[in-house]
Amino acid sequence: MIGAGFGGLATAKALRRTDVNVTVIDRHNYHLFQPLLYQVATGLLDPSDIAYPIRRILRRSRNVRVHLADLRRIDLDRKRLVTSGEDVEYDVLVVATGSVTDFFGNTSLAARLSGLKHLTEALALRALLLRNFEAAALCRDEAERRRLLTVAVVGAGPTGVEYCGAVAELINHVLPRDFPELDFREARVVLIEAGDGALTAFAPQLGRSAIRSLERRGVRAHFGGVVTDARDGSLLLEDGSSIPAATVLWTAGVRPAAPAWSGRAVTTERGRIVVTPQLHLPDRPEVFVIGDGAATASGARVLPMLAPVAMQGGRHVARVIRARLRNRPSRPSATATRGRWPRWAGAAPWPRSARFVCAAFRPG
Amino acid sequence: MIGAGFGGLATAKALRRTDVNVTVIDRHNYHLFQPLLYQVATGLLDPSDIAYPIRRILRRSRNVRVHLADLRRIDLDRKRLVTSGEDVEYDVLVVATGSVTDFFGNTSLAARLSGLKHLTEALALRALLLRNFEAAALCRDEAERRRLLTVAVVGAGPTGVEYCGAVAELINHVLPRDFPELDFREARVVLIEAGDGALTAFAPQLGRSAIRSLERRGVRAHFGGVVTDARDGSLLLEDGSSIPAATVLWTAGVRPAAPAWSGRAVTTERGRIVVTPQLHLPDRPEVFVIGDGAATASGARVLPMLAPVAMQGGRHVARVIRARLRNRPSRPSATATRGRWPRWAGAAPWPRSARFVCAAFRPG
Repeated sequence: MIGAGFGGLATAKALRRTDVNVTVIDRHNYHLFQPLLYQVATGLLDPSDIAYPIRRILRRSRNVRVHLADLRRIDLDRKRLVTSGEDVEYDVLVVATGSVTDFFGNTSLAARLSGLKHLTEALALRALLLRNFEAAALCRDEAERRRLLTVAVVGAGPTGVEYCGAVAELINHVLPRDFPELDFREARVVLIEAGDGALTAFAPQLGRSAIRSLERRGVRAHFGGVVTDARDGSLLLEDGSSIPAATVLWTAGVRPAAPAWSGRAVTTERGRIVVTPQLHLPDRPEVFVIGDGAATASGARVLPMLAPVAMQGGRHVARVIRARLRNRPSRPSATATRGRWPRWAGAAPWPRSARFVCAAFRPG
Repeated sequence: MIGAGFGGLATAKALRRTDVNVTVIDRHNYHLFQPLLYQVATGLLDPSDIAYPIRRILRRSRNVRVHLADLRRIDLDRKRLVTSGEDVEYDVLVVATGSVTDFFGNTSLAARLSGLKHLTEALALRALLLRNFEAAALCRDEAERRRLLTVAVVGAGPTGVEYCGAVAELINHVLPRDFPELDFREARVVLIEAGDGALTAFAPQLGRSAIRSLERRGVRAHFGGVVTDARDGSLLLEDGSSIPAATVLWTAGVRPAAPAWSGRAVTTERGRIVVTPQLHLPDRPEVFVIGDGAATASGARVLPMLAPVAMQGGRHVARVIRARLRNRPSRPSATATRGRWPRWAGAAPWPRSARFVCAAFRPG
């Protein structure tokens, strides 16, 4: 009953020995280990190292079916998913649709820059960097050559920081042997962050240590820099300055990939869907939302969009479902806020023959 | 002075310790080990297993430069290559442009079917097959499901035969565990060949043995079948019959990827360029042609379009160039016909300062 990201697969696996029929819907036939996408983007890993067939992951889960389709709309009232293929009916739905790159409404940036959420983006970024270095090898104009050899990363979150580090290693150790005609002192890696520190979702000393480590490798970190546009091969900043760079990665934001809903409106908090402590919609006990798309919290802190949160959510949903099947009350999720959202009033247990159909999935 | 297929790289490597400046031009930054493309097409190998960076292959060849560009035209009179970037001048040119898939002028087939010469084609074929099997898993109509589960290969040359065998293994051993909902007795692999045997470029017993081996794996071989069109998800044959198949590979023909020439016309024999026993154009001792694009022969037999022929050609060209640098006559190529084309009358040796610029390269 799940999508095939970290949250979806965790739910499906946790339901493995439960007497329900589970359908996993995804638009791809593979699960993507997104945290290592940056390694594919620098050519250190192959796509097959981080993309694994969903069917193979779930091979031993005999109660799980895999359904390849693109989710168009969730019809809450008719309990039905409208997909690129046939409609899919459900009795219980787990929505684990993850998140997408956010350009904060800047259509010019969105049209010109790429994020790093998909395999195709990682492969395109890798090809772009190599193509720019090849072009630099043939370029006689110094300013243009420096631009071709500049890699700019917008956003100092985990993806931006990791990618910067990997590109710096590439430039310091790997590429000079492949491009003997280039002077690698002309190559630059620039990290641009609107805030005043890196990795702000984590403890402050981690961000400081990461920046020190990057700077030792030659990365120039640029804090308080807000990128407003990308034009003529340069990034334009709010303060009027510009950074000429041929290879640019945008990792300055992600937002939940909210599916389209029919029926009653779904309340969201900054794009993340509001759920009860049992992780279902307040008025729909049969519709769970987990992972990046759900506004779950621990105490006063809203949990970040990270794989461990999604996996915990998936396992919790499986526990709630099993408890309901046994007609027992379930405990609230350890990761859900108590009292912040309306407490779940309790739902009728499902019969064992219920179609525990899918939740559906990742964008892109 | 070379392209980065088997022929081009063999020439560049053979010139490694020669006192000339060599430029290798290719449109890709990698050398592709084409004989194993079928393994990428079935998912048994990763692209990086058969594509290797040209710069890394030639890292130790200090006299070799790599130049990434798309060849547009060869200007024989001005000794100049017109490329997607700047023009490249040469003193000596080695053309090693390989071959492309041939649909024999059938534009309908060319628009609908794919060959297997490029990495992108292999990846697309792999995705197509898996997507068709996923669709079959959701399909309730038996005829359509059988069509989705049918893989048809047109042409029983080495690529067609190897791909058939690999797909048969996939269907017999790998996919049944991934698709428990499918009945694999509905899956078919069909090999369609216009002639009356497989692998006709090799000894007859090899073809017979290959077909026996494929038939043991469940492949149905169809000889004397001429495919005339692909329409409504089926292959149409000359005899009026049709074969419904969702995954189709066209390997029925290849032809030389002849570059565009300016200046005097270049004589060709069935698309392959006529060369002297020294492997250069009859009236242009500074322009060599090797590999699939050259009509070389051993006795009365024109040599097939295979990697070993291209590599022998490349090494021979390097010997001819070295002999001329030393101002010595060179022996004719062991692989070139004697007496069939005008014998080379001898050419002036080049000064050591000559720009031994590139031959250029593979299509696609």
